[in-house]
Amino acid sequence: MNYALLCRLLGAVCLLIGGSMVFSLPWAIPGIAQRTYAPEATSVEWQAVFGFGISMAICAIIGLTLRRIGNSAKGHTLYRKEAMATVGLSWVMATVLGALPIFLSGTSISNDRPITFIESMFEAQSGFSTTGATVLTELEDPELVSYCVLFWRSWTHFLGGLGIVVLFVAILGQGSAGKAMMRAEMPGPSKEGSMPRMQHTALVFAAIYIGLNLILAVIYLMEGMTFFDALCHAFATMATGGFSTYNASLGRFNSALIEYTTIFFMILAGTNFTLLYFCSIGSPLRLWRDVEFRVFISIIVLVTVGVVLFGMEYQDDHFETLGSAVRYGLFQVVSVITTTGYGTGDFDAWNNFGRGALLLLMFVGGCAGSTGGGMKVIRHILFAKILRLEIERSHRPRVVRPLRLGGQAMEDPEVERGILLYFSFFLAICAASWMLLVTFEPDRTWGVVRTAEGAADVATDTDSPRDLEPPMITTPEQRLKSTLDEKLLDSASAVAATLNNIGPGLGVVGATKNYAGFSQPAKLLFVWLMMLGRVELFSVLVLLSPNFWRRH
Amino acid sequence: MNYALLCRLLGAVCLLIGGSMVFSLPWAIPGIAQRTYAPEATSVEWQAVFGFGISMAICAIIGLTLRRIGNSAKGHTLYRKEAMATVGLSWVMATVLGALPIFLSGTSISNDRPITFIESMFEAQSGFSTTGATVLTELEDPELVSYCVLFWRSWTHFLGGLGIVVLFVAILGQGSAGKAMMRAEMPGPSKEGSMPRMQHTALVFAAIYIGLNLILAVIYLMEGMTFFDALCHAFATMATGGFSTYNASLGRFNSALIEYTTIFFMILAGTNFTLLYFCSIGSPLRLWRDVEFRVFISIIVLVTVGVVLFGMEYQDDHFETLGSAVRYGLFQVVSVITTTGYGTGDFDAWNNFGRGALLLLMFVGGCAGSTGGGMKVIRHILFAKILRLEIERSHRPRVVRPLRLGGQAMEDPEVERGILLYFSFFLAICAASWMLLVTFEPDRTWGVVRTAEGAADVATDTDSPRDLEPPMITTPEQRLKSTLDEKLLDSASAVAATLNNIGPGLGVVGATKNYAGFSQPAKLLFVWLMMLGRVELFSVLVLLSPNFWRRH
Repeated sequence: MNYALLCRLLGAVCLLIGGSMVFSLPWAIPGIAQRTYAPEATSVEWQAVFGFGISMAICAIIGLTLRRIGNSAKGHTLYRKEAMATVGLSWVMATVLGALPIFLSGTSISNDRPITFIESMFEAQSGFSTTGATVLTELEDPELVSYCVLFWRSWTHFLGGLGIVVLFVAILGQGSAGKAMMRAEMPGPSKEGSMPRMQHTALVFAAIYIGLNLILAVIYLMEGMTFFDALCHAFATMATGGFSTYNASLGRFNSALIEYTTIFFMILAGTNFTLLYFCSIGSPLRLWRDVEFRVFISIIVLVTVGVVLFGMEYQDDHFETLGSAVRYGLFQVVSVITTTGYGTGDFDAWNNFGRGALLLLMFVGGCAGSTGGGMKVIRHILFAKILRLEIERSHRPRVVRPLRLGGQAMEDPEVERGILLYFSFFLAICAASWMLLVTFEPDRTWGVVRTAEGAADVATDTDSPRDLEPPMITTPEQRLKSTLDEKLLDSASAVAATLNNIGPGLGVVGATKNYAGFSQPAKLLFVWLMMLGRVELFSVLVLLSPNFWRRH
Repeated sequence: MNYALLCRLLGAVCLLIGGSMVFSLPWAIPGIAQRTYAPEATSVEWQAVFGFGISMAICAIIGLTLRRIGNSAKGHTLYRKEAMATVGLSWVMATVLGALPIFLSGTSISNDRPITFIESMFEAQSGFSTTGATVLTELEDPELVSYCVLFWRSWTHFLGGLGIVVLFVAILGQGSAGKAMMRAEMPGPSKEGSMPRMQHTALVFAAIYIGLNLILAVIYLMEGMTFFDALCHAFATMATGGFSTYNASLGRFNSALIEYTTIFFMILAGTNFTLLYFCSIGSPLRLWRDVEFRVFISIIVLVTVGVVLFGMEYQDDHFETLGSAVRYGLFQVVSVITTTGYGTGDFDAWNNFGRGALLLLMFVGGCAGSTGGGMKVIRHILFAKILRLEIERSHRPRVVRPLRLGGQAMEDPEVERGILLYFSFFLAICAASWMLLVTFEPDRTWGVVRTAEGAADVATDTDSPRDLEPPMITTPEQRLKSTLDEKLLDSASAVAATLNNIGPGLGVVGATKNYAGFSQPAKLLFVWLMMLGRVELFSVLVLLSPNFWRRH
């Protein structure tokens, strides 16, 4: 391990994060935020400016120190090991540094409850990993959350999304689905993965990403959002993040126009950026020739049809007319498959088909090379093909047929192995995290309190600061039984929603609730899961291996 | 495909099943059953004798016809394809033929509700696959279920278990974990997988299996069971099936002696029969030298400690004292990990750690080469090793370390591929079946009824013949919400419990309930899942491939 080089790179990341904090500061001035708020809120904004200042100073000190240590670096070549360490540690560092301004700005979850540092880390990781899960219950109260912090949350989405599209180029051809994701027609001067070509591709991708962000912000502005809201929601949409500046998420605007615009841009954000590049240079037909994109769109259409039909059959909220059903159904399906996590209604109150379908969709994710998280459509396509080939192989062991994608054979046996490994690994992490959560998360999170005699009961009107709705059931034992039943399912959906970088899940982390009710250790677990999901498992897991850190 | 040979083999299986039905007949005579029952029940027994007679005749006709067709078979060599087709089709045939006597004996689920043919198939498949899931709600009412049928259910366990230990020899070295399961010290004259050696091994295994059944039946007899109960429960224990002759399962005897005896024999039944062979020829130390067995025992001990500690902490039923907690906790853990599925208490009323742990244990299963179902301990061991190696490989791609088991390197790359394939495949089937069940199973199964206006409500006192406990909640919307929450979890546990051949799961298929409440299509799905789980996926899935059935 070339520690000096590692330090220099981490120092640069540190300075970048600290430097970009400056963009949050203008929003302390009411005129720029274009929103009127109570005079009491002014002190909150001043504290935010102070908090951001301290945070920038800390970033500068750490960044410069790391650069200084890194100055002794011999050689500039970034080997595989250093690259992995840089990626993994950058995320860890971003989580801690990104949490600083949220923590130091005096943000509060509710009136008597200031945010803890772990919760700030949760918020920062949720931003950088473009998950969009939040612990902040009262986003709209300017005395609890300052505009600087609201902007910073959306800004972390922007940075996270940018990091992902650029990182995708860097890790292209590596990792489990890397070979499969590599398209022969990648933009750039030469076919080989040479350094100048990678840099060129990264620049093209970054330009597309930033361009789409700006276009969307302008459209939002024209559709009636304020400048502040337009920027924040554009960042959250294009990064497939999902942080909103309102408690009711995008549903607050209650505008079909804004929702359909968002649907369109969420789909773009969930599409491989290579394809977007071809569209931008005038070859939109490439989109339809791409197997992954076709499957991606087909899944959206099929699931939406199912959700609309079942929703109308069960007369769910908003599903009374076809127009309204399509609007709310399509929005939620696209929001979940692209791992954005916006909500326009309480999908947790949908019928069981809808809820089950959304839970499964969480595991699909966007296309490779997009800002969408999750397992990615391409892995599911290859997985299905592997299974089909395997059934044939089991009775004709001598017939060897290569795995094909879009007519081309994939000759590398590592592709198949990587896909299978990823699926099994993902499953194992889900199961282990679920068990951890069910075991160690106190039943209090679901409103269960225990009397001095040790008997368990559900608090009827919880005075805990967790701000949870009390369960809707009346007699003690009924309440207890039903509440504990929910625990198993809610925990599973919380794990799925954070590991896949979605945001909201079912039950206590459902559309109208958030992660505030969980205990601090559970929040740390979620921070870890969001990071694992975002950096595609191995780059993070490898950090835990002592072998990895040996000098050679 | 050599169809003639296939017919001859299937004909033999058919005659075997039909012939073995004769063992159920004596139990129609009260003196042999050693139990007194009401005179009204006599007509039920007569109908059972009649039903078994017809079934035997049908088996004989089909079997002899198949043999006759098969007489034209040229060549006796069983190629891979024919072997797979024989195994797969035998299970399908056994399900249908085994359902005949249950259906024709006039068995009833409750007073006004005779069993359907699909439910009879469910019961037969549950027996042959040694799952132990049942739709019969009133086992102890001699007017609803005859003793002949009760014995036949247990007898299908015996046949299923015998089939599995013998089949294990035949498929050894094939299939996904085949190579891993193959032990160099397999009993038999030569090291190669030659025909005489395989036959010898199969005979040894069958002898051990039958011997253990007899020993256990004698012990049960000495511990106070009737001859009938002793035989039935011995069959269910050694096959890791779980059918009982009482509604309260083994809990009916309420005897610590019987329970600890059963625990010991369930562990034996979940142990690789190769190891049992070495124990029987005087090398019991081999047990401890076997990695899989050590892990198997360690899992049982660890989970039991957890279940006991959490159970005492939460003061679950039966967990008041340490002695009682160990007795009930250990029994349930062993019952689930070996995939037997006996119950001695309502584990569905345990705390969430206990319930979650049991749900995960369902996916562990017994050792390879045992009668236990599930994914098997060895696959989990190899899976963990593959993941550990992979993390190292991700940063040191050039270091190739072989997969090791018990100090020996596994040189076949197919082992690793097979394990990963199995894990991913298993997951995919679980997810797809869960979605099917949640989508198409009517909410009525959970007690939800819909009024003429289309609004949904939960029936307070259900007069449906399904005999489900009405949900314990009082106001309409509370009932509905909580009931639909349960649906997602219960469906998942029903899929896990049938695919892993356990039997009971959580919620509506919990310890004190059964599968009677599900709709007929859902029961067909469960029949399919039990078969898939038992025959290790590929032998059944291959039957669906049109390619497989081509002549060459």
